[in-house]
Amino acid sequence: MNIGLLGGTGVEGKGLAIRFAAAGIPVLVGSRSDKRALDAARDYSELSRTQLVTGCKNEEMLARCEIVFLTLPFGRAVPAVESSREHFRNGQVFVDVTAPITFREGRPDFVELDAGSSAELLARYMPAGVDLVAAFKTIPAHALADLPTELRCDVFVCGDSNEAKERVMKVAALIPSLRPLDCGPLAMARTLERMTFLAIQLNRRYRRKGARFTIQGI
Amino acid sequence: MNIGLLGGTGVEGKGLAIRFAAAGIPVLVGSRSDKRALDAARDYSELSRTQLVTGCKNEEMLARCEIVFLTLPFGRAVPAVESSREHFRNGQVFVDVTAPITFREGRPDFVELDAGSSAELLARYMPAGVDLVAAFKTIPAHALADLPTELRCDVFVCGDSNEAKERVMKVAALIPSLRPLDCGPLAMARTLERMTFLAIQLNRRYRRKGARFTIQGI
Repeated sequence: MNIGLLGGTGVEGKGLAIRFAAAGIPVLVGSRSDKRALDAARDYSELSRTQLVTGCKNEEMLARCEIVFLTLPFGRAVPAVESSREHFRNGQVFVDVTAPITFREGRPDFVELDAGSSAELLARYMPAGVDLVAAFKTIPAHALADLPTELRCDVFVCGDSNEAKERVMKVAALIPSLRPLDCGPLAMARTLERMTFLAIQLNRRYRRKGARFTIQGI
Repeated sequence: MNIGLLGGTGVEGKGLAIRFAAAGIPVLVGSRSDKRALDAARDYSELSRTQLVTGCKNEEMLARCEIVFLTLPFGRAVPAVESSREHFRNGQVFVDVTAPITFREGRPDFVELDAGSSAELLARYMPAGVDLVAAFKTIPAHALADLPTELRCDVFVCGDSNEAKERVMKVAALIPSLRPLDCGPLAMARTLERMTFLAIQLNRRYRRKGARFTIQGI
């Protein structure tokens, strides 16, 4: 099984690539540019001390991967999905990790969406036969991209297809000290995306970078 | 200093009363009925193994307490505040622990409020000179009300008055294994109330009762 990253050359892509590769899973970094994908893949392979990360254009990545993570910032998510739409594969699982948060002069702002959440907005653009799952929204890219940092937190997963959700939870569970929790239908992304906003606010207030959530009692 | 509970005879009131009393803080259980308040207070004193819990009518409690927790379910919060409005004291801190969640045949449902959150809705009913703080929203009453359960979680506090917020964080910090975190302005209650909903969903899915949040990395 391959994990693909749509727009995987940023910090979120870096984090997921090195964590999955370090867990023994082959990762394909997709980008609009062949060269950027290859450069990033070489970097991530080195950081993960594996040879499991390769790079290619987004189209090729989409043709070759069973599970694809969208690793672009919120503002670029919809255009990226729209322009790649015809390359999606039937039966593919698409994982949205975005939160509708913008930054103005360094200050985060939560964007209220008519769709309810970034995940529900993206769901409108999914081709038939592709299931959308929301996950990894609350885990700071900064912590993910620093392999020596033990994550010791939960990864909250929601979606309307139980089968797709289970596939994502299964690969997430391969990352050490990360516990996947099934949070129910896709609309629960409304909660998860706000939790991302809270984590960012807490980081600012307490001058940290890696605030993330764990559930006690489960 | 006294902590007061407006409508304190339910399970949320029980939890706060015994936790605060066990931490050495005098608690006044308020109720519309003298008798129910006295009965509950006797019960909570016993459970907390202290003599720190007493009971009285809501009006008297409001006259005597610096920090007042609203310990009624969401549906009864606004009417209770409206009917007690004239008894609030200048300089009092009012703590909202509610989340806009209703249950139909045991199934929880999140109520979308025009105000944005239950806390922001209640803020509209606060008399001048009374500061509203949101806290304890994500801690299950069930866990709170079982003194042998070590909480080992965070209590998320938000509000528009820093001074009021600090007073609430200071008393919350007296409860063992509970860490108060300043989450910013009152509007962050939008996040906290949804987190309560997530905790309830996780409890249902994983057949537990005490799901609660901890932040790693801070």
